[in-house]
Amino acid sequence: MLGLMNATPFEVISIWGVLIIAFLGLGYAFLLRTQIMKYDKGTPQMQEIWGAIRLGADAYLGRQLKSILPIIFVLTGVLFFSVYAIPPSEEAIKRFSTLGPDTVRLVVGLGRAAAFVMGAFFSLIVGQFGMRMAVEGNVRVASASRRSFSEALKIAYRTGTITGMLTDGLGLLGGTVIFIIFGIASPDVLLGFGFGGTLLALFMRVGGGIYTKAADVGADLVGKVEKNIPEDDPRNAAVIADLVGDNVGDCAGMAADIFESYEVTIVSGLILGLALVSLTGELKWIIFPLLVRGIGVVSSIIGTYLVRGNKEGEKQDALASINKGFFASAAISLVAFFFLAMFYMHEWRAFLSVGVGIALAIVIDEITKYFTHTHHPPVKEIADSSRTGSATLILRGISIGFESSAWQFIVIAVTILAAIMIYWGQSVIYILYGVAMTGIGMLTLTGNNVAMDSFGPIVDNANGIGEMAHLEPKARQIMADLDAVGNTTKAITKGVAIGSAVIAAVSLFGSFLTDVTKVQAQMGIAESLRLLVTGIRVSEPIVFVGMLIGGAVPCLFSALIVNAVVRAASLIVEEVRRQFRIPGLMEGKVKPDYKKAVDICTVAAQKELIGLSLIAVLSPILIGMVLSVEALGGFLAGVIISGQLLAVFMATAGGAWDNAKKIIEDGLYGGKGSEAHKASVVGDTVGDPLKDTAGPALNPMIKVINLVSLLSAPIIIHYHRTDLGIIIAIVVSILLIFGAILYSKHGSLSFKKKT
Amino acid sequence: MLGLMNATPFEVISIWGVLIIAFLGLGYAFLLRTQIMKYDKGTPQMQEIWGAIRLGADAYLGRQLKSILPIIFVLTGVLFFSVYAIPPSEEAIKRFSTLGPDTVRLVVGLGRAAAFVMGAFFSLIVGQFGMRMAVEGNVRVASASRRSFSEALKIAYRTGTITGMLTDGLGLLGGTVIFIIFGIASPDVLLGFGFGGTLLALFMRVGGGIYTKAADVGADLVGKVEKNIPEDDPRNAAVIADLVGDNVGDCAGMAADIFESYEVTIVSGLILGLALVSLTGELKWIIFPLLVRGIGVVSSIIGTYLVRGNKEGEKQDALASINKGFFASAAISLVAFFFLAMFYMHEWRAFLSVGVGIALAIVIDEITKYFTHTHHPPVKEIADSSRTGSATLILRGISIGFESSAWQFIVIAVTILAAIMIYWGQSVIYILYGVAMTGIGMLTLTGNNVAMDSFGPIVDNANGIGEMAHLEPKARQIMADLDAVGNTTKAITKGVAIGSAVIAAVSLFGSFLTDVTKVQAQMGIAESLRLLVTGIRVSEPIVFVGMLIGGAVPCLFSALIVNAVVRAASLIVEEVRRQFRIPGLMEGKVKPDYKKAVDICTVAAQKELIGLSLIAVLSPILIGMVLSVEALGGFLAGVIISGQLLAVFMATAGGAWDNAKKIIEDGLYGGKGSEAHKASVVGDTVGDPLKDTAGPALNPMIKVINLVSLLSAPIIIHYHRTDLGIIIAIVVSILLIFGAILYSKHGSLSFKKKT
Repeated sequence: MLGLMNATPFEVISIWGVLIIAFLGLGYAFLLRTQIMKYDKGTPQMQEIWGAIRLGADAYLGRQLKSILPIIFVLTGVLFFSVYAIPPSEEAIKRFSTLGPDTVRLVVGLGRAAAFVMGAFFSLIVGQFGMRMAVEGNVRVASASRRSFSEALKIAYRTGTITGMLTDGLGLLGGTVIFIIFGIASPDVLLGFGFGGTLLALFMRVGGGIYTKAADVGADLVGKVEKNIPEDDPRNAAVIADLVGDNVGDCAGMAADIFESYEVTIVSGLILGLALVSLTGELKWIIFPLLVRGIGVVSSIIGTYLVRGNKEGEKQDALASINKGFFASAAISLVAFFFLAMFYMHEWRAFLSVGVGIALAIVIDEITKYFTHTHHPPVKEIADSSRTGSATLILRGISIGFESSAWQFIVIAVTILAAIMIYWGQSVIYILYGVAMTGIGMLTLTGNNVAMDSFGPIVDNANGIGEMAHLEPKARQIMADLDAVGNTTKAITKGVAIGSAVIAAVSLFGSFLTDVTKVQAQMGIAESLRLLVTGIRVSEPIVFVGMLIGGAVPCLFSALIVNAVVRAASLIVEEVRRQFRIPGLMEGKVKPDYKKAVDICTVAAQKELIGLSLIAVLSPILIGMVLSVEALGGFLAGVIISGQLLAVFMATAGGAWDNAKKIIEDGLYGGKGSEAHKASVVGDTVGDPLKDTAGPALNPMIKVINLVSLLSAPIIIHYHRTDLGIIIAIVVSILLIFGAILYSKHGSLSFKKKT
Repeated sequence: MLGLMNATPFEVISIWGVLIIAFLGLGYAFLLRTQIMKYDKGTPQMQEIWGAIRLGADAYLGRQLKSILPIIFVLTGVLFFSVYAIPPSEEAIKRFSTLGPDTVRLVVGLGRAAAFVMGAFFSLIVGQFGMRMAVEGNVRVASASRRSFSEALKIAYRTGTITGMLTDGLGLLGGTVIFIIFGIASPDVLLGFGFGGTLLALFMRVGGGIYTKAADVGADLVGKVEKNIPEDDPRNAAVIADLVGDNVGDCAGMAADIFESYEVTIVSGLILGLALVSLTGELKWIIFPLLVRGIGVVSSIIGTYLVRGNKEGEKQDALASINKGFFASAAISLVAFFFLAMFYMHEWRAFLSVGVGIALAIVIDEITKYFTHTHHPPVKEIADSSRTGSATLILRGISIGFESSAWQFIVIAVTILAAIMIYWGQSVIYILYGVAMTGIGMLTLTGNNVAMDSFGPIVDNANGIGEMAHLEPKARQIMADLDAVGNTTKAITKGVAIGSAVIAAVSLFGSFLTDVTKVQAQMGIAESLRLLVTGIRVSEPIVFVGMLIGGAVPCLFSALIVNAVVRAASLIVEEVRRQFRIPGLMEGKVKPDYKKAVDICTVAAQKELIGLSLIAVLSPILIGMVLSVEALGGFLAGVIISGQLLAVFMATAGGAWDNAKKIIEDGLYGGKGSEAHKASVVGDTVGDPLKDTAGPALNPMIKVINLVSLLSAPIIIHYHRTDLGIIIAIVVSILLIFGAILYSKHGSLSFKKKT
C-alpha cells in the first residue's frame, strides 16, 4: 500500500480511520442542515426580504462561477500538460513501478489536474454551500428570536457549524484520498489540490470583498451621510445588496479562505512529512499530521454540539457558551495529541510543535482582541481622539495598525524560533516540518473557528431582516445582542486567518526548498549548488532584487483592490441617488429597485477579479523565468514580509475604527449624532474596505503566489534561459499586460458629484 | 603613503585635490554667507518676529544638544573600547607596520572614536549652521520681496546653497581625511564616521519632526479648526513655534539626513572599494568614488551659482532657473565622469554605475512628482474624492501611497539589476561595488538638492513673516509664489532622500557581508561557513526569524513616532486654548506668549528622542547576540523591506493629501471653506506627521541599524554564545526595557476635551 513497504497495521487502520472521520464531519454537517431546515421562516414580510437576499446571493454566486470556470478550465489543462515539461519524479516511478514511464507521467498529470479541480470544487462547495446555509439560517434566527434567545443562538451557531464541518471534512477528505492513491508520489498531486482551493479562495475573497464593501460604502455614503437615514433602512436601494454582501464577503469569502489555509497546511505538512519519510524510512511523519487533523475534527464535532444558550437573553452567556465549546474541543484535542505523540510517535517534539500551534492561535486571538476590542486601550484611545476630529482619529488608527503589525511579526518569529528550539540540533527539514505541524496545530479547531465566524454574518443578516420587517423590540434586542457577539467572534477568526496564512506560507516556503532541491538533485546539479544546501541567499544581489519585487506585489495588489472598491462604490452611489429621486420613494410609498443595486455590485466585482488574480498567478513565473529560481525564493520572502505587514495593518486599523465607532454609538462622547460620532464614522468608512476587502484578500494571494512558485519551480529550473523559458516569460508578460489593460478599462475612479 | 605601495602620482595628486575641493566647497559656503548677511532685515516689526523665530530655533538646538551630548559621550567610549574586544585587523597591522600590536589597537580605537565624534559634529554643523542661515535668510527674503522677485529668489536659493555646500564639503572632507590617515585600514574608522553622522541625523529627524508637527497640528487644530482664524495668525500662541518647526524639521532635520546619506554612501563605497583593492591590487577602486564626489562638488558650485530670477514675478521662471542650475551641474558631472572612467578607470562599467545613479535620481524625481504633484492624476483623484467626504479622500490617499511604494520597490530592484548586468559574470563584490557607485552617483548633485530643499522652509518662513508683519500685497504675492515653488522643490528632495537611503542601506548591507566574511576568515572559520560564500540564507529558519523581527522594527518605530506627535500636539492644543481664553487676546489687544508654546514643543520633542533612538541602536546587537550573525543579516533585509514600504507610503500619501488640499484651496470644487475643502484639510492633517515626521525618520533609522550591525558584527562573531556575549545581550535588553519605560512615562496619548 502507498508504495511504502513498512506500514504497520495501526498505520493502515489510521489512514482509513481518518477517511472515515472526514465523512463523519460531512455527515454531521448534513445532520445539522436537516435540523436547521425544520425551523420556521417567520412572517411573509420576513420571507420576502429573505427571498430578495437569497436571490441576490444566488445571482452573485452564479455569475462568479461563470467568470471563474474558463480560468479553471484553462488552468486544469496547464496543470495536466505541465508534467510533460519535466520528467516524472523518482517517487512517482517507484510508486507506480508496474507502469511504464509514459503511463506514470499520464497518471501524475491526470492526478494533478484532477486534484486541482477537486481543490477548486471543494473550496467552491464550502463557500457556496456555507453561504446558502447562512442565508437559510438568518431568517430562521430572526424568527426564533421572537421566541427565545437560546433558540436563536443555537440556530445561528449551528448554521455556522455546517460551514465549519464542511471545511474540516472536505479538507481532510481531499488530502487523505490523494495520499491513499499516490502515496510517496503525492507531493506533485497535492500541490494541484492546494492550488485549486487557494485560487478559488482568492477569487471569492477578492470578488466577495469588493461586492460587500461597494454595497456597504455606497449605501452608507448616500443613506447615512447624505440623507441621514439609518442603516438597513428599506428605502435605501442598496440595502439588500448590503445584506447580500455580508454573505458573499464575510461568509463565502471567509469560509473559502479558511478552507484554503486548512488545506494548504495539510499539503505542506504532507510534503515535508514525505521528505522525512524518505530520509528516515519511517511512515509516522505523514500519519501524524493526518491523525492530528482527524482528532481535531472529532473534537470540533463534540465541542460545537455543546454550544447552546442556557439562560434567557444574556449576551455574556452567548459568548461564554461559544467559548465553552471552543475550550472543550481544545482540551479533547490536547489530551489526544499527547497520547498520540507519546505512544505512536514516541517523542515529545511532535506534541510540542502542535501544542505551539494551539498556543499561537490563542496568543493571536489575544493580540487581536487587545488591539480591536472595545475593552482595551487602543480602541478607547481612538474613540478618545474623535473629540479633536476625524484627522486625529485616523492618525491614531494608523499608528495602532502599525503597532499591531509589529507584534504580529514578533509572534510569528517567536513561533518559528520555537520550532527551531524544539528540533534543536536537527537538520533544516525537521525544523520546517515543525513549522508545518505548528500550522496544523493552529488550525486544529477550524470547525469551531469557522462556526464562530459564520455566526457573525448570520446574526448580522438576521438583525437586518428584523429591522426591515419591523419585528417587535424584544426580538430586536435579542438580535442586536447576538450581533454584538458576532462582531467579536468575527474579529477573532480574522486574526487566526492572517496568522495561519503566514505560518502556511512559511511552510510552503519550506516545501519550495525541498522541492527545488529534489529537482536539482534529479537533474544532477552538484550538491553544493542545491538550494537546501546553499539556501536562498539574500546576500546574492539577484535574490535581493527578487525580494524587493516581492515586497512590491502586496502593495500594488492592495492599492488596486482599494481602488476597485472605490470604483464599484461610486456606481452604487449614483444608482442609490437616482432611485432616491423617484417620486414617492422617500415617503415609503414606492419600493426601491433592490435588484438593480445587486446587479451593479455583482457585475462590478466580477469585472475586477481577473486582472487582480493574474498578478498573483503570473508574477512568480515571470520572476523565476527572467531572474532565477533563487531570486524566486527571495521574491517569496519579500511577499511574505510585505503581505503580512499590510494584511495585519489593514485588518487591525479597520477593526479598531469600527469598534471605536461602536462605543461612541453606545453613548461615549455624546453618542450618535455628535461631532465625535461623525469623526468615528469617517474612520469606520476608511477602515471598511481595508479590513474586509484588501486585508483579507492578501491571505489567499500570498498562498497562491507560494503555490504557483512550487508548481513552476521544476519547470523554471529546467527551462531557465532556454528558448522555451524565454517563450514562457514572453507569454506571461503579455498576459500580465492584458490583465493591466483589462483592469484599467473599468472606467474612472471618480465619484460623480451629486447633481 | 596610505600603506599602499603602488599609488601613481596622478592618484596621489587626486587625493590631495579632493581634499582641496572639499575646502573649496566650504569656502564657497562662507562666501555666500558673507553675501547674504549684507542684505537688510526689513522693518522693525519684521525683525521682531524674526527675533522670536531665531530665539526659538536657538533654544531648540541648545536643548537638543544637551540631550544628545551624554549619549555621544557614552558611545564614543563604547566605540573606543570596542576595538579591545577583537584583535586588530590585518590591514591595520599592515598599515601601521612600524607600531606594535597594542599601539595599533590604540590608534584604531582612537581613530574610530574620533571619527564618530567628527561624524556627529559635522552632522550637527550642517544641521545647526544650515538652520541658523535659513533663519538669517528668511527675514532678508521677506524684505527683498518688497523690492523684486529675482532678488528674493536669489537670496532664498543662495541661503539654501550654503547648507548644500556644507553637506558636500564636510562629507567629502571627513571621508578623505580618514582615508589619508588610515589608508587600507580605513573601514573600521569610516564606520565610526558614518555612525556619528547617521545617529545625529536620526536625533535631528526624530526631534525636529516631532517638534514641527506638534506645533503645526496643534496650531491648526485650535486656530484653523476651532477658532476659524487663518494660518500664521499672530493671535495664535503656537504660530512662532510652527515657524520654528519649519526650520528645525524641514531645514535642520533634512540637511542632517541628506548629509548622512552622502556620508554613508562614501563610507560604503570606500569599504567595498578597499575590498576590491585588496583583491586586485589596484588603487583605482577607491580613488574613483572620491574623484566622482569631488567632481560633483565642483559642478554643484557652478550650477548653483547660475540660479537667479531673470524676469519679474514669474513663478515658472523661478522653477526654470533652479532646474537650469540643476541640469548644468548634471551635464558637467556626466562629461567629467565619462572622461574619468575612460582615461583613468579604463572601463565603461564605472561610468555606467554612476550614470545609473544619476538616472535613478531623475526617475525617482519623476515618480515622486507623478504621485504628489497637482498636475497628475493621483492628486487630482484625491481632490476629486473630497466631494464624497473625508473618508473617500483618505482611502484614495492610502491606495495611492501603497501604489507608490510598489513602484519605488520596483525602481530600486531595477537599479540593483542594472548593477548586476553591468558587472555581469563578475563576483558578488563587484556587483555590490556597482550598487555603492550608483548610490554615489545618485547623490552627486547633493549640493543642488539640499539647496532646493532648504529653499522650501526659507520661503515658507518668509511668507509667514510677511503675513504677521502685514507686508504690502505685491510683496506677499512674490512670497506666495516662491512658497509654491518651495513646496515642489521640497517634495522632490524628499523622494531622493528616501531612494538614496535604500540604496545606501543596500550597499551597507553589502559592506556587512564583506566585513563579516573578513572577520570570519581571520578567525579561521572554514571557507564553506563564511557568509560571502554561503550567504545570508533566508531558507535558514533562524534567518527567517531575523527577517520577521526586522520587518517589525519599522512598524513599531513608525507607530511610536506618530504617537509621540499626537502626544506633543495635545499639549500644544491645551496651551493655545488656554491663551485664547486670556481676555483681549482674541481682539489683538494682548500679545500671546509665544515662548511658552516654543518651550512645550522643545521639551516634548527631546523627551521622546532617547526611547526611540534606543530601538535603532540596540535592536541589531540584541538580534545578533541572541540569534546569530546570519540572523542579523536577515534582520537587516527585513528592516529594509518594511522600512522602504512604510517610508514611501507615508511620504507619498502625505504629500498627495497636502497638494490635493492646495488645488482645492486654489478654487477647485468650491475652494476654501467648502465641504470639499474641509475634507481635504482632514487629509492634510493626517498626512502631516506621516510625511514630515514618521516617514523621514525611517531613513536614518534604517541606516543606524545597518551601521550598528556593521560595527557590532565582529564582536558578535567572536562572542556569540560566550559568557561575554550573554552579558552584552542582558545589558542591551535592560537598556531596551529602560527605553520602553522612559517612552511610556511621557504621559497620556489623549487630547483633553476642550473645557
